[in-house]
Amino acid sequence: MDRDRDMQYKDVPLYEGERIDDLQRNGYGIIQKTGGFCFGMDAVLLSGFAGARKGDLVVDLGTGTGIIPILMRAKTEAGMLYGLELQHEVAEMAERSTRLNGISDTVKIVEGDIKEYRIVLSELCGRADVVTSNPPYMKRGSGLVNPEDMKMVSRHEVCCSLSDVCGAASGLLRSGGHFYMVHRPLRLPEIVTALKGSGLEPKRLKFVHPYRDREANMVLIDSVKDGKPECRVEPPVIVYEAPGKYTREIYDIYGY
Amino acid sequence: MDRDRDMQYKDVPLYEGERIDDLQRNGYGIIQKTGGFCFGMDAVLLSGFAGARKGDLVVDLGTGTGIIPILMRAKTEAGMLYGLELQHEVAEMAERSTRLNGISDTVKIVEGDIKEYRIVLSELCGRADVVTSNPPYMKRGSGLVNPEDMKMVSRHEVCCSLSDVCGAASGLLRSGGHFYMVHRPLRLPEIVTALKGSGLEPKRLKFVHPYRDREANMVLIDSVKDGKPECRVEPPVIVYEAPGKYTREIYDIYGY
Repeated sequence: MDRDRDMQYKDVPLYEGERIDDLQRNGYGIIQKTGGFCFGMDAVLLSGFAGARKGDLVVDLGTGTGIIPILMRAKTEAGMLYGLELQHEVAEMAERSTRLNGISDTVKIVEGDIKEYRIVLSELCGRADVVTSNPPYMKRGSGLVNPEDMKMVSRHEVCCSLSDVCGAASGLLRSGGHFYMVHRPLRLPEIVTALKGSGLEPKRLKFVHPYRDREANMVLIDSVKDGKPECRVEPPVIVYEAPGKYTREIYDIYGY
Repeated sequence: MDRDRDMQYKDVPLYEGERIDDLQRNGYGIIQKTGGFCFGMDAVLLSGFAGARKGDLVVDLGTGTGIIPILMRAKTEAGMLYGLELQHEVAEMAERSTRLNGISDTVKIVEGDIKEYRIVLSELCGRADVVTSNPPYMKRGSGLVNPEDMKMVSRHEVCCSLSDVCGAASGLLRSGGHFYMVHRPLRLPEIVTALKGSGLEPKRLKFVHPYRDREANMVLIDSVKDGKPECRVEPPVIVYEAPGKYTREIYDIYGY
């Protein structure tokens, strides 16, 4: 981010170890912590996969840096966008990013627990048109546990399980509303079970393969509350056409 | 099929409207009825996706013309292969195909109902290493109903539902045995529910797209009885690289 920009938003403080990354959309930037949990391609792909119509009420569960509502603010004509984040320090940083971009009137960061959505987002229950989530991918107790707490909460289901996320999405959505999630294909059968168990019907799947001849490492899932069972599997996204060289599709999604 | 071959198997009768198609494998042929339900690419892809080790006991549910056990006889070192088929006329035709190929000692066609597998295949229950199925894709009462009964039974769930097929597969398999199925992605969430409900864990999925930029129209699913939840999504199969021109992968699967 250049000097002018820093000066323009000089009322938004940056703390030690923080930096501003350019989002290549509407001139927006995002505050991230070097060495902390930074947003990845999954969040960018999800913000492209998720649709929101003019005036839609959107909620992002476990918003982290706020990357998904900020990108959806740039890409859609949604009405209010809410980002729910459990960790105080992360929520506060996301809130500064919304001020940095001058969008804090329509992108609201709420500090709170997904499991307590009925309390912390009580006024939104049954009203959301769209819910998004890039939840922790790993089961509690599996994989390497990150010594820094904030990263661990973002990656492991320490604070909320897959069914907590699906339950909250369903409770927030109106009938016919969409829940867009990105997750690991390894857990797909469990994801389908959790979605259906919460009254969310998977309607559209998109798999992301790092190379044409490699297993998928991400899946994008569009589910509809009270939807009728019929699921489309879209053409796959291939990330690299050669080592270090993104495919045209990825450049398009990133907006280069 | 050339003259010599016809003469070599002259003890196997062909009835009116029947023809012998060359399978391009081990010199095998298959009897099909012109205007009847003929095997498609789904059966060929399934026989390539399904694995069987030396001596494995294999059962194909709803075998139709017998295409899957006949191709697996050609491609694997499986021990005994059984094909269960409900329709008398179809089962009898499949049985003639096994004689035509001289493999009727290790490929057995059994006439009977999938729902009565405990009776008709009683000696195989809990013993199969591999179960395969290319079941009817369409729900009872959906889509165009075919005026010719035999085709209707092959395409619609008139005689058995998805959960009947999964229940039979699970009842026939030993713990750790594999169930390989080909189906429509439109029904994937329901398939996952039916599999898991029968104690079969989806471990490997492969989607088949007619073109690189088109939705998948088939899915190949490898499930393991009593398997641990962890599912891999393999690189997709793309069928055509241009109209009328198969991709290299398809030529390889067909053995050209």
